[in-house]
Amino acid sequence: MSSTSTGSRGETVPTVPSAAGVEDVSGVLDRGRTLATPVLRAAVDRLAPPMDTVAAYHFGWIDAEGRPSAGDGGKAVRPALALLSAEAAGAAPEVGIPGAVAVELVHNFSLLHDDLMDGDEQRRHRDTVWKVHGPAQAILVGDALFALANEVLLELDTVEAGRATRRLTTASRKLIDGQAQDISYEHRERVTVEECLEMEGNKTGALLACAVSIGAVLGGADEKTADTLERYGYHLGLAFQAVDDLLGIWGDPEATGKQTWSDLRQRKKSLPVVAALSADGEAAERLGELLAADAKASDFENFSEEEFAARAALIEEAGGREWTAQEARRQHTIAIEALNEVEMPDRVRAQLVALADFVVVRKR
Amino acid sequence: MSSTSTGSRGETVPTVPSAAGVEDVSGVLDRGRTLATPVLRAAVDRLAPPMDTVAAYHFGWIDAEGRPSAGDGGKAVRPALALLSAEAAGAAPEVGIPGAVAVELVHNFSLLHDDLMDGDEQRRHRDTVWKVHGPAQAILVGDALFALANEVLLELDTVEAGRATRRLTTASRKLIDGQAQDISYEHRERVTVEECLEMEGNKTGALLACAVSIGAVLGGADEKTADTLERYGYHLGLAFQAVDDLLGIWGDPEATGKQTWSDLRQRKKSLPVVAALSADGEAAERLGELLAADAKASDFENFSEEEFAARAALIEEAGGREWTAQEARRQHTIAIEALNEVEMPDRVRAQLVALADFVVVRKR
Repeated sequence: MSSTSTGSRGETVPTVPSAAGVEDVSGVLDRGRTLATPVLRAAVDRLAPPMDTVAAYHFGWIDAEGRPSAGDGGKAVRPALALLSAEAAGAAPEVGIPGAVAVELVHNFSLLHDDLMDGDEQRRHRDTVWKVHGPAQAILVGDALFALANEVLLELDTVEAGRATRRLTTASRKLIDGQAQDISYEHRERVTVEECLEMEGNKTGALLACAVSIGAVLGGADEKTADTLERYGYHLGLAFQAVDDLLGIWGDPEATGKQTWSDLRQRKKSLPVVAALSADGEAAERLGELLAADAKASDFENFSEEEFAARAALIEEAGGREWTAQEARRQHTIAIEALNEVEMPDRVRAQLVALADFVVVRKR
Repeated sequence: MSSTSTGSRGETVPTVPSAAGVEDVSGVLDRGRTLATPVLRAAVDRLAPPMDTVAAYHFGWIDAEGRPSAGDGGKAVRPALALLSAEAAGAAPEVGIPGAVAVELVHNFSLLHDDLMDGDEQRRHRDTVWKVHGPAQAILVGDALFALANEVLLELDTVEAGRATRRLTTASRKLIDGQAQDISYEHRERVTVEECLEMEGNKTGALLACAVSIGAVLGGADEKTADTLERYGYHLGLAFQAVDDLLGIWGDPEATGKQTWSDLRQRKKSLPVVAALSADGEAAERLGELLAADAKASDFENFSEEEFAARAALIEEAGGREWTAQEARRQHTIAIEALNEVEMPDRVRAQLVALADFVVVRKR
């Protein structure tokens, strides 16, 4: 974890976490991946063919030809959080595994469907499922992962599992609400910063919040503790999404696995865009005119790199980039403050802080 | 209910139920619709815009322009079953309402997604959601209804609701497996009758089975009673699907709300087709050749009414129509026999028998 944020209960957290903090986090992420993946694979293996194969491709376990591959399965932040969540409630990390798997299944259900709805062709450096296996398989396998998430929890057959499923269902509904808002905003000329934050809270905050409470709930934590942990996760999610929005415009395609100017190509009303449009000054005005014209442009699909670069430059000039970076740091601070309201082992707290630090400085 | 099937425990049920039985059923269907619809509407109203509107269109509550409409909301067999299910366990019918709503939400989630995957343009005499509101909304609203189904049950916050959610999740997984099989069979030249029945058991049997157990589970029935009720529902579902397969080829478009030769247009390997192909004789052979050629035909989309009629005639000549009608009656008999293994009030049993009769003779 970051040495500067050690024991920082109530103190100001560093705006830029130390490199040490970021390195430390890889152990926590690895543990989540190592413990959750075998259970996740066993769950996915239950799917009827060809859905098992399609899902295995999506998770990066096989390539498009069906050969085993050690693909990029994503950052695995959620499984890591779910295991720490169990430990925060005083349980063994293993208690959080079904929660980690369930949250990961819901997350990937949403990726499969969102990529299709958004027309995204690349994810994790590979063609998306709908590109490789067709839209029907993307819909179907998404549905199957969503159902499987509830199955994995409910077959535990405990009262705690029922509570965990209820929280996961609430988070899933918000996730879907967020995607609905995201799509509708693409067709609107103006979106306020508040609307954008609400959408991102639904789309990213809710499931990260659930990841941070689900292990604790499975470990027997009371509702108040679970709610407070969710508050940390929710703001962590908003920080995460703010950084994602920065990477969606200025991210290195080599690192992110997405196209250059990915969010601009999709006319996403992400935080940097919305913040820039709501600013005063010439750059904001010029950006507004350009984006309004873009919305009607019939050749938008064929815009050059330079055209997108010009829009990105205007967003930056109008202050959208800096505002979003600040917002990420602000949400990071609120997340850490919520964490301080829950009693938990020092190591677990330190690792949750380190994860929050990682989220803010990551490049992918 | 049908007078000829009264008290027919273990006896042979009539192969053609009397008209009286079919008329009686409308009261049971109406009750299910009347009690479940307000709760269903309240649940759908929770969806974020524009998903609430899209869902209301799908359910037939508004038209494509958003004006209130008294559209065809479907036969509502499942809600009727869920309320009878509660009564079968000695509970008030109202106890089954959340179950009725949850099953109806899962059913409609699958319709929204299946219509898109199958490219179906018409349902219940209207354009399908993806035709009117676009593919993204069909995916998104389907997802939302699926999540809402679990929400409606889990917010009851009882042990019974947890058990009911688990059964619903199992049924949903089978439903998705069935759709996966259905799609994969369309691309295969030969499908066995057994494979077809397994697919239809997943796609239709599992959720009808759940409808018949969910009210009882919410009413406190033990697992054995719920399992036996599911057996009735599963075979009722297979009878239902066999009739659906007949209507999918020889149904009156005025009554079904679908296109003529609807299943043939989609190359569905439904029971009449599969049974005909597995028969001996000239008609079966000729049909096999025709369908093999159709699978490669580039102008299949433009086939005339006569061309589909010729295929339907061959299916009938090869015995596929009669075999499927007999299969519907056979499944009807097995369903009624399962029912006889559960203690329940006479009126409830009579109404479940009447519903089974209705399913076999319906025209839509």
